[in-house]
Amino acid sequence: MENLDLRNPVFATYVIAATIVILKAVAMSWLTVVRMVRANGGFCAPEDVRKTTLNPDPNPKQLEPDERVERIRRIQLNDLESLPYFLFAGLLFVLTAPSLTLARWLLYGYVASRLAHFAAYLTAQTHDTRAALWSVGSLILIFMTVRTLLAALGLWV
Amino acid sequence: MENLDLRNPVFATYVIAATIVILKAVAMSWLTVVRMVRANGGFCAPEDVRKTTLNPDPNPKQLEPDERVERIRRIQLNDLESLPYFLFAGLLFVLTAPSLTLARWLLYGYVASRLAHFAAYLTAQTHDTRAALWSVGSLILIFMTVRTLLAALGLWV
Amino acid sequence: MENLDLRNPVFATYVIAATIVILKAVAMSWLTVVRMVRANGGFCAPEDVRKTTLNPDPNPKQLEPDERVERIRRIQLNDLESLPYFLFAGLLFVLTAPSLTLARWLLYGYVASRLAHFAAYLTAQTHDTRAALWSVGSLILIFMTVRTLLAALGLWV
Repeated sequence: MENLDLRNPVFATYVIAATIVILKAVAMSWLTVVRMVRANGGFCAPEDVRKTTLNPDPNPKQLEPDERVERIRRIQLNDLESLPYFLFAGLLFVLTAPSLTLARWLLYGYVASRLAHFAAYLTAQTHDTRAALWSVGSLILIFMTVRTLLAALGLWV
Repeated sequence: MENLDLRNPVFATYVIAATIVILKAVAMSWLTVVRMVRANGGFCAPEDVRKTTLNPDPNPKQLEPDERVERIRRIQLNDLESLPYFLFAGLLFVLTAPSLTLARWLLYGYVASRLAHFAAYLTAQTHDTRAALWSVGSLILIFMTVRTLLAALGLWV
Repeated sequence: MENLDLRNPVFATYVIAATIVILKAVAMSWLTVVRMVRANGGFCAPEDVRKTTLNPDPNPKQLEPDERVERIRRIQLNDLESLPYFLFAGLLFVLTAPSLTLARWLLYGYVASRLAHFAAYLTAQTHDTRAALWSVGSLILIFMTVRTLLAALGLWV
């Protein structure tokens, strides 16, 4: 059986984790849209204050930062600094044929840590809470990456 | 035949779409360079206003944002919020063995939507136009991701 | 032997290069944390100036940009504009079955160019030095991507 086949349960675990984090990341873009519509502002390009069907009553103030929109942009940037690297590290990790139990703990653990981080950031919990949740995800990412590197160097059987 | 083989037409379709969007993304970096050279400004690091061969006549104003440069930076950030996720979603989608027709519509449709979005953003079309083109790409991405997730969960034959 | 098997030396080369750049990218996040702790500032969310165990003596000035923190954020953003695309271009390039020698020069050459770029940016070398190192990496990325596209189009045997 090939490694990258959905009948391989380790790969299927990866695909489930990967598609959930992709949907989570894409949801941030739509959440930004929702909040820009509600705030009727927080836009970013000069042409966004031109009169259009969706913006019948434009105003230069619509280009000023809106904290509710900026919060989602910060969450989205935080995602960008982690998720693409996780998606790669996870894929390469799966190709080193780890046990299903280990793969599930690491991959689903990462997903859980990011969803909890999102909830904490969205509701403006303290920096300490957010940092703790972020660290869990980052340590899982580092562990998978180092283990994969060691396997590629032939230092991990 | 393996899934990830260029003789597999579905995979070849993915590789063509993926390499085009990568080249598009890399082109944004070079376009930023071109516009910084033309504006002789829009730089971002304090050391960029030191006297060098490429900047013989430095000036602190070179660190101020230049709208023509910032426009490309906004396009580049918009790419970052979508393209890496598309590249993953497309790869995993291809591994679920979709039909060639569906793969072509979705993958090339995404590429076309992003190139049109770029043209609209570069020429400062209205927000409505840009939003419509962005939405097409985002919906294709969501469709591919959800279908792949369902396949991994065994809910899609 | 499968393409994506660590016993394939071309793929092992890719995995080594990929895991090194992922670890490099993740290190930027931790370096940001280290510098925020040292500066006791450079925070980004309003809730970060709430009194907590890790921030017993909060101050609104902690939300002002700190150049030592901002420098790492700029490096991290520069990584984001390149590394995910490199990770994909490299993976797809490996699937076109290049020679081991070529793969090593390109993949390790890219890693070396990025580590040198990091050293130059961190120590605030001139823009000319940074631009030269960035260009080496970008040209390697473009070469791998174009060659892969030609292979997918059947134009490269």
